[in-house]
Amino acid sequence: MPLALDFGISKELERVEERIAECLKSNEDLLTEIASYVVRSGGKRIRPVITLLAFYAAGGEEPSEAIEIASAIELIHNATLVHDDINDGGTLRRGMESAYKKFGVGTSLVAGDYLFARGFEIGGRFSDKVVGVTARACVNLAEGEIRQMRNLRNVDLRAEEYIDTVTMKTAMPMSSGAKVGAILGGGTDAQVKALADYGLNLGICFQIVDDILDVIGTEAVLGKPVGTDIREGNLTLIPIFALSNGSEEADALRAILRKEEKTESDVAEALRLLKESGAVEQAREAAGEYSRTAKKHLSVPLVEEFEEGLVKLADFVLERSY
Amino acid sequence: MPLALDFGISKELERVEERIAECLKSNEDLLTEIASYVVRSGGKRIRPVITLLAFYAAGGEEPSEAIEIASAIELIHNATLVHDDINDGGTLRRGMESAYKKFGVGTSLVAGDYLFARGFEIGGRFSDKVVGVTARACVNLAEGEIRQMRNLRNVDLRAEEYIDTVTMKTAMPMSSGAKVGAILGGGTDAQVKALADYGLNLGICFQIVDDILDVIGTEAVLGKPVGTDIREGNLTLIPIFALSNGSEEADALRAILRKEEKTESDVAEALRLLKESGAVEQAREAAGEYSRTAKKHLSVPLVEEFEEGLVKLADFVLERSY
Repeated sequence: MPLALDFGISKELERVEERIAECLKSNEDLLTEIASYVVRSGGKRIRPVITLLAFYAAGGEEPSEAIEIASAIELIHNATLVHDDINDGGTLRRGMESAYKKFGVGTSLVAGDYLFARGFEIGGRFSDKVVGVTARACVNLAEGEIRQMRNLRNVDLRAEEYIDTVTMKTAMPMSSGAKVGAILGGGTDAQVKALADYGLNLGICFQIVDDILDVIGTEAVLGKPVGTDIREGNLTLIPIFALSNGSEEADALRAILRKEEKTESDVAEALRLLKESGAVEQAREAAGEYSRTAKKHLSVPLVEEFEEGLVKLADFVLERSY
Repeated sequence: MPLALDFGISKELERVEERIAECLKSNEDLLTEIASYVVRSGGKRIRPVITLLAFYAAGGEEPSEAIEIASAIELIHNATLVHDDINDGGTLRRGMESAYKKFGVGTSLVAGDYLFARGFEIGGRFSDKVVGVTARACVNLAEGEIRQMRNLRNVDLRAEEYIDTVTMKTAMPMSSGAKVGAILGGGTDAQVKALADYGLNLGICFQIVDDILDVIGTEAVLGKPVGTDIREGNLTLIPIFALSNGSEEADALRAILRKEEKTESDVAEALRLLKESGAVEQAREAAGEYSRTAKKHLSVPLVEEFEEGLVKLADFVLERSY
């Protein structure tokens, strides 16, 4: 579901939706259908919110260009979601069946490529600087994904390595979105840098909270099963803390996390161990720290109304339950 | 293997290889490895040849920009090859194990996205026109793929529909490569249009010959098994002709083509029926017609040396056995 919060940019977000819908139209009905299904299954549209708030906060006035690039970024993000689901076998996304489950792997893979191409079709029209930042974020994202895959079931993973992966996979794309928003808004170098740093810290916070929700959330609210990270062997900050904070649960947890094939009762047991280990609270503290750091970067002069929006966003990203 | 022919652009092609190799370097060694494996397994590099020849034929002189865009196009092409193999379960490509077979589906899918991102990273720096043409070709390509999937095992497919699919999937990308080459070469509108039309017809010829080789080629020369189209249920021009040219083989062939699961003896039998139906000769005639049409489009004034290269390329594409 889209964010219920009002950041003073709801008209712009509507225009983003319209622009995206326009881009999905293909002569191939099946392609339009899959792409629309993916995009319609919604998401919080956090990326367009970041870009648009950064645009206005940096002094931007006429938002057409920012709306274009925000649409491009959201299209590319949706492309990666389709491919992600194929990769990790995710069967539900935002309460709806994953695209590859509904339409098949082959057609969904192509639909992902189609969303990429549409995103780049819009995004490629911008200046070298904007294109460079956006494409670089896609490169980082792929690198982050590979890094995560490489570290599956690695029970020796350190918190710093996890943060590096998350930075590449989630935070750099959000940071880039803030950066291009600020550039298009005509921001000073200091503003552009501050907003990019804000986005980076916001992105890390966002991912840690995502990982926490995968442990303590409910399928009804999340729209997808919990315990996905455990099932896949993805060592997020919560197991990393649980394995290293001296808690009694460490050994039993380590044994489950190392298993190549985990039963559903393994997953349930691991979730129980994680919840009792104190690691969720530690991870929440870390997320809080990134949210606060994000807000600290807003100390450069910014347009007040939208600076407040960015603060509200950093609070929401930390406190959200979905 | 790369084209053995000399088109007078071998230095430029070397620079394309260097540029591509540069782009593949990632901090994630596994990503560099997969991407390099894919690109190294070679291919004929026909797309860079088209772009560079069109550039010089249209009067281009300093080739740096054409080399950049040719590299971007080849990167994107390689991205689609990785994803294609995942889609159609191709286990061999150019005599080497497919990337997804060697490295796994997940990592290869991401490596494909990485190649896309790297391609757009270079390509996005160009003018709106060049970016627009390139991104549009990627959109067409995805549409063509979906169209082909939609028509699997459709024994009523008509030749015109096949040509439409091939146009989207193969010919538009080649045409776009010729077009951006001509634009960067400073070609007149007439030259740009003529070279785009050349590329379009060359692309259709290229795909028909590919389809013929899948019937009459050998695994040793092709570097991949023959009969792939039959196995997948992909109705190319050869079965379309065989089913409609009044040949005795039509009914037996139709029965095999309709099967969802085909045994290897089904495939061998279908290949035999195709070879005896006269359809290969008909398809070769059609390919010849597209090659001739491609060359006819070169009647606008062009730089002679490179016009000759384009003629040679159209002959090669028709006559090639690999």
